[in-house]
Amino acid sequence: MSFLSKNIEQVCTEIVNGNRKTLAKAITLIESNKSEDRIFAHKILNKLNTNKNKSDSVRIAITGIPGAGKSTFIDILGNYLLNDKHKIAVLAIDPSSRISKGSILGDKTRMSKLSNDPNVFIRPTAASNFHGGIAKNTRESIFLCEAAGYNIIFIETVGVGQNEISVFEMVDFFLLLKIAGSGDELQGIKRGIIEMSDLIVINKTDGDNTNNSIIAKNEFQLALKLFSKKESGWMPEVMNCSSIENKGIIEIWDKITSYFKLTKGNNYFYKNRVKQNKYWLKEIINQSIINNFYQNEKVRREYKNQVKKIEENNVDVFEAYKNIILSQKS
Amino acid sequence: MSFLSKNIEQVCTEIVNGNRKTLAKAITLIESNKSEDRIFAHKILNKLNTNKNKSDSVRIAITGIPGAGKSTFIDILGNYLLNDKHKIAVLAIDPSSRISKGSILGDKTRMSKLSNDPNVFIRPTAASNFHGGIAKNTRESIFLCEAAGYNIIFIETVGVGQNEISVFEMVDFFLLLKIAGSGDELQGIKRGIIEMSDLIVINKTDGDNTNNSIIAKNEFQLALKLFSKKESGWMPEVMNCSSIENKGIIEIWDKITSYFKLTKGNNYFYKNRVKQNKYWLKEIINQSIINNFYQNEKVRREYKNQVKKIEENNVDVFEAYKNIILSQKS
Repeated sequence: MSFLSKNIEQVCTEIVNGNRKTLAKAITLIESNKSEDRIFAHKILNKLNTNKNKSDSVRIAITGIPGAGKSTFIDILGNYLLNDKHKIAVLAIDPSSRISKGSILGDKTRMSKLSNDPNVFIRPTAASNFHGGIAKNTRESIFLCEAAGYNIIFIETVGVGQNEISVFEMVDFFLLLKIAGSGDELQGIKRGIIEMSDLIVINKTDGDNTNNSIIAKNEFQLALKLFSKKESGWMPEVMNCSSIENKGIIEIWDKITSYFKLTKGNNYFYKNRVKQNKYWLKEIINQSIINNFYQNEKVRREYKNQVKKIEENNVDVFEAYKNIILSQKS
Repeated sequence: MSFLSKNIEQVCTEIVNGNRKTLAKAITLIESNKSEDRIFAHKILNKLNTNKNKSDSVRIAITGIPGAGKSTFIDILGNYLLNDKHKIAVLAIDPSSRISKGSILGDKTRMSKLSNDPNVFIRPTAASNFHGGIAKNTRESIFLCEAAGYNIIFIETVGVGQNEISVFEMVDFFLLLKIAGSGDELQGIKRGIIEMSDLIVINKTDGDNTNNSIIAKNEFQLALKLFSKKESGWMPEVMNCSSIENKGIIEIWDKITSYFKLTKGNNYFYKNRVKQNKYWLKEIINQSIINNFYQNEKVRREYKNQVKKIEENNVDVFEAYKNIILSQKS
């Protein structure tokens, strides 16, 4: 029986009861380029999000360049949390996944402790569709995971694309994972990410790398002082850790916990969620209107055509705009 | 005779011939909420932007909090440039201008050297319309100013809103103006701005403030080292200056000039403009589709209604989205 012909009620019940196969299939529908799939997915979301305030979950971004050790870090931290009876979802945004499907498999194998645990759900997001949307998909996947009972949601991102700003708008906590030693200026971290961070963790503070990692920590600490206090009332910090030696992990979770204590106490946590909901309402509306526009085959063709002309300096932007808008009606 | 009934050809000729009144009126049309005004404005832009690659102009953002001394700084720097036969336009984005029209007048009086010069055009942007647009308006105003022969365009912004990301996408050079002494963490500069900057200038390095300003310069210099090299190949720097004592201004312009030499030499300047054109093509299309959607009175009403429900935690985002989309067809 095709998934789409299933009863919405039944699908939702399966998700809520923790059926991971059904959860995975529902996420696939969210990421689908077919509008009938997305309509079905929205019906599921609509059914599940029956006005529950999901403040019993926490959404944590783990951002770092490839090689920073994100997967291993999440594996160790997640394993520690499982002892505490949490249910953990890991949503990995990998912009390269369209090209190298290997990295998706890589994620699962690098999370060897987590990947076989029944209380863990690991999901890499599919490649972007024509006009963005990775972030929107991820946000919707968060909701599905929460409905399925996962209470700690990790969003793993590489921090080099435009996605991070959107990720920032969907998480409660932003953790930047860095490594010292290779010279930070060479790491290619997107400018702006540092200022979003609630916590910077210098990973791989072990072996020959220990000294450099401690120096890096101090440097970042100094740099963070120059930034203004965050709206949350939280002062971002820098910490060292070693995932392979399992050092500093408990301290990091304690720090994260104290962030949630602070921001739930001063109400920022809840206000921020409302703000994010308003942000996403606008995003979803705008995205759907824009998607609808580009669904027109003529528009898509003309858009490509005009972009090429812009690259060749053969048209000005307003002329290109006019041509694309007109192509819709032709 | 109403401006709208004028011949497009004639309006364009007047702008190109440097008629500042016509230029000002055309910008007013860009900023208008009436669609017939904007259609007329687009016709002007379309006519003027006859596929010229305007790489003989430079677009420079001057960003800083209220009190950083942006207007005085631009006044002094601009005055220096006028000796060099430049034509200067200053476009000030003031998010508070809807409330306090005083600040618009303030700008002009604070630029006492520039405001009476025939080779200078000063223009504060009007307040935002319902769904954003300040940035788009500013970009279109840049084009009009360039068509009118202004070759140095300053975009003055306060650096506290979402606008700066868009401003960053329309300028060739991003200068952040700061002051020391008041404690930087209290200045409320939007996190992320520092990382966009090509040059940080500590203004008001004079009198009792001199020592603090030099300390601030060193601190920022240290902080900048932690960020990765920019795509332009440029390493951002920090400089001191005093606008009221006219100190450091020439050195700043020399620095800006060396930036343009570097980025025109390595082709980044031109590649960046093409990239910005593509960015703006998408922005203009999306903005016009979205504006068109919210033009519907029923949609606007339902949107307000649903946002209120979100604030009261009375509806989930997907339900709200569905209701708004449906209201269009009701």
